[in-house]
Amino acid sequence: MANPIDFYFDFSSPYGYFAASKIEDIAARHGRTVNWRPILLGAVFKVTGQQPLPTIPLKGDYSKRDLERTAKLLNLPFKLPTKFPISTQSPARAFYYLNNRDPALAKRLALALYVAYFADDVDISSPENTADIAAHAGVDKTEMTAALNDPAVKDRLRHEVDAAVALGVFGSPYIVVDGEPFWGSDRLDQVEKWLSTGGW
Amino acid sequence: MANPIDFYFDFSSPYGYFAASKIEDIAARHGRTVNWRPILLGAVFKVTGQQPLPTIPLKGDYSKRDLERTAKLLNLPFKLPTKFPISTQSPARAFYYLNNRDPALAKRLALALYVAYFADDVDISSPENTADIAAHAGVDKTEMTAALNDPAVKDRLRHEVDAAVALGVFGSPYIVVDGEPFWGSDRLDQVEKWLSTGGW
Repeated sequence: MANPIDFYFDFSSPYGYFAASKIEDIAARHGRTVNWRPILLGAVFKVTGQQPLPTIPLKGDYSKRDLERTAKLLNLPFKLPTKFPISTQSPARAFYYLNNRDPALAKRLALALYVAYFADDVDISSPENTADIAAHAGVDKTEMTAALNDPAVKDRLRHEVDAAVALGVFGSPYIVVDGEPFWGSDRLDQVEKWLSTGGW
Repeated sequence: MANPIDFYFDFSSPYGYFAASKIEDIAARHGRTVNWRPILLGAVFKVTGQQPLPTIPLKGDYSKRDLERTAKLLNLPFKLPTKFPISTQSPARAFYYLNNRDPALAKRLALALYVAYFADDVDISSPENTADIAAHAGVDKTEMTAALNDPAVKDRLRHEVDAAVALGVFGSPYIVVDGEPFWGSDRLDQVEKWLSTGGW
């Protein structure tokens, strides 16, 4: 059995949203599965000294145009959220909590959270909103609300972020195919080519 | 006559080298010409607060792998220079000096400088090396050496960099088609599509 693809992303990353909408199809075309691994860019940026895109002079303004243009080209609904970027502990904890018992459901929730944030302008940093979206996906709201405050779930996320940084993950999306890292939704064509050829 | 494409780049930018190797063919396929406009990322980064790629933890290491992989895919000779990044006043001044009298020769020199730096590991920050490469392209070495120290040529480069920043240029390559900006060699496919369609 071929190795799964590791897909690292932050729920506040629009390019992560683009990649999340495409990665399963790409993997399936090459007989691969995908491990989804939400991270927290805020923690990563403490290591790299980087800043969130919207706060960078000139580049921040450009990125708005690039995001709209690229979303249209990918045929994805997109509206820059009113509050952007956001802290993503709640959606990331929700994902890891569900992932333990039902990885397919956890992926569906991840996509639903991304669409809520980047298409419908729902602030998913809120535990309340995260639990509502999970409820819509079929997860008991009381159970999810408890999970978002569970120290074991919080520890799990911290551990995942630390492990990602130790591996070299510095941005979102960050995709690893058989040990080869690819950063950015604009590397999905290289990911696909690597899956086809095994490298070049 | 259709507008020329504006192509901003820094001679120390490997992704600028990739784009420089492709932009004329892309423009020609769509009946466009290209204005080459070398800039100084050091001056730009003072405005944006960004850092040179190799100095960024994790991302710097990744970029080495991405550059090798992308160069191979583009069929371009590439070797990360021993001294990287470098100051690029000399090659940029050489370009603007020649561009006044012979834009085609100035572009040939720009490509020769890029190849010297990124394929043959020649330190083009040196005025001596820049003048040697210009001499090889058919420009009198004494004349070029004088031009590199000419206050009018220095002023021209400063003016170009200031104008680029005023326009929003924050990185290299940065390509403007009919007022629409595209950043990065990984946006060349969007540049080509924009030239075909006039936007989407």
